[in-house]
Amino acid sequence: MKILVINSGSSSLKYRLIEMTDESVLAKGVADRIGIGNSFLKHSGSKEVKIEQDMPNHEVAIKLVLSALTNPEYGVIKSADEIAAVGHRTVAGGEYFTHSTLITDTVRDQLKELVELAPIHMPACLMGMDACREVMPNVPHVAVFDTSFHSTMPDVAKLYGIDYTDYQTLKIRRYGFHGISHKYIAEEATKIMGKKDFNLVVCHLGNGASLSAVKNGKCVDTTMGFTPLEGLIMGTRCGDIDPSVVQFLCNKKGWDVSQAINYLNKSCGVKGIS
Amino acid sequence: MKILVINSGSSSLKYRLIEMTDESVLAKGVADRIGIGNSFLKHSGSKEVKIEQDMPNHEVAIKLVLSALTNPEYGVIKSADEIAAVGHRTVAGGEYFTHSTLITDTVRDQLKELVELAPIHMPACLMGMDACREVMPNVPHVAVFDTSFHSTMPDVAKLYGIDYTDYQTLKIRRYGFHGISHKYIAEEATKIMGKKDFNLVVCHLGNGASLSAVKNGKCVDTTMGFTPLEGLIMGTRCGDIDPSVVQFLCNKKGWDVSQAINYLNKSCGVKGIS
Repeated sequence: MKILVINSGSSSLKYRLIEMTDESVLAKGVADRIGIGNSFLKHSGSKEVKIEQDMPNHEVAIKLVLSALTNPEYGVIKSADEIAAVGHRTVAGGEYFTHSTLITDTVRDQLKELVELAPIHMPACLMGMDACREVMPNVPHVAVFDTSFHSTMPDVAKLYGIDYTDYQTLKIRRYGFHGISHKYIAEEATKIMGKKDFNLVVCHLGNGASLSAVKNGKCVDTTMGFTPLEGLIMGTRCGDIDPSVVQFLCNKKGWDVSQAINYLNKSCGVKGIS
Repeated sequence: MKILVINSGSSSLKYRLIEMTDESVLAKGVADRIGIGNSFLKHSGSKEVKIEQDMPNHEVAIKLVLSALTNPEYGVIKSADEIAAVGHRTVAGGEYFTHSTLITDTVRDQLKELVELAPIHMPACLMGMDACREVMPNVPHVAVFDTSFHSTMPDVAKLYGIDYTDYQTLKIRRYGFHGISHKYIAEEATKIMGKKDFNLVVCHLGNGASLSAVKNGKCVDTTMGFTPLEGLIMGTRCGDIDPSVVQFLCNKKGWDVSQAINYLNKSCGVKGIS
C-alpha cells in the first residue's frame, strides 16, 4: 500500500510517497514558490529532476506532483490510482481532534474554524488539503495533527491563568505544536531504550522550535502554547514574552494588535536579536 | 536618625517610622480607602488607634499620618522635623535607575516616563511621592526601586527575542519587580548561611508573586518581565501566556488592546481559574 504524505506551506508543497509494507520512501520532493513566481518542482523519484513551471496555486502544484510521480522517465508509479491514501500534516487540531482524522466536509468546516489558532500555518494547510481533495477525490484524505501528541497534557500544563469560562467557551489554552515530530522522536527513543517508563525531553529545533516533556511515552508539557508563537526564541518568532509588550508596541508604534502580533511572529526571534 | 518609609497604592498609603540606630519600628500604619469613601487611618504608635476621616487624596492622607505620628496621645515623635528622610517604594526604575535615588524634579520627570512599565502601580507611587514632597518639602525623599536588585541580570535573562533596535530605543526588556523584597531575602539568607557563594531561589508570594534566581548574592534571573504581568499565575494576573491570546481576545470580545491587557491583569490568575 502506497501513501502520499503532504506538508503544505503558504508557497510550498512538500511530499513523500511511502511504501507502507517496509516504510520505504519511493519518491520525495517539493513544489516551491507557488503563487510567487519563478516556481519549480524538485523531484527525487527513480531519478532527480528540477522542473521549472508556473504554479499559480496549490492545485496546479499537486497536479504537477502527480504528473512527476507517474512520469515514465523519473516517476515511481504507473497511475495515481496506486496511491491508497493521502496524509496531510495539519498544524492545529484544537480541542476537536486528538487523533488523526478522515477529512470529510464536516471535518473540513471544523478545520476552518481553527485558522485563528495558527493564522500563519493553517490557511496553507487548508489550501494544500483542498487542492489534493479536488485532484484526488476518490482517495481517503487524512489530517494528521501537530497538536494531537500534546492532548495528553494535564490541566496544570494546558490551562492558562485566565478566566475559566473563557477557556471553556473560547478554548483558549496551551495546545502545543510539532507533535508529529515529538511523537516520532518519543517512539524512536522508546525503541532505543527498550522500555517505556522513562522521562524524556524532546527538542524539535528548526525555524520553528519547541520542546516537550514526555513521561512514560506520553506528553506532559510543551513550550509552544495557544499558537506556535510561545516558547523558545525561534527563527523569526519572539517566543515567551510579557503580553503587556503587545500593548506597549501598539501605543509606541501606532500599530493595531494584529500588526503587533505579526511583528512578534515575523520580525523577532534570532532574526530580530541579531 | 528616624526614617519614614512609604508604600503608596492607588487607594492606600502604608508607612513605617524606623529608628535607624537599631532599625526598630517606632510606628506603623495604613491610610486606607483614600479617594473612595469611608476612608480611615489605622495607626500603631505608642498606642493603637483607628481614625475615621475623609481622605479625598494622598496629600490629605500623608498629613493625617504626620498628625498621628506627632499626636501627644498615640504619636511617637514631637515634631515632623524629627524625620530625617523619607523612603518611597517605587515599582519601576526602568533602565534609568539601578540604585536608590534622591528624588529631584528631574528624577520625578524620568519616573513619569516609566508609568508605562507598571501602569497599575506607578501612578499610585507618584501620587504618594508628590503628596509627601508637598507636605515635607525640606526633607530628602529617596525612591527605592523594585527593579534595582534585578539590574544585575545577564543579557540572556533580560533580553526578549525581539528586534534589538526596539530594545535599544523603546527599552523593551525584562526588568523584574519585587526587588526590594528579593534583595532583603537574599541578604538575610547570606547571614543565615554565613557565606555568599551559594545558589538561591527567592520566592515572593503575595497577591503579586515572583521568583528570582540569585547566584553569589546577585540576581541572575526572575519571573516577572517588562511589567508585573509576566511570570507566575497571581491573584488576578494571568502570568505567562502566549501573546497571541491578546489578539484572539480582541477579535472575539471586540476589545481594544488596553481592555485585553486590563482583563489579563485584573480578571485572571487564581481569581479567574477558580
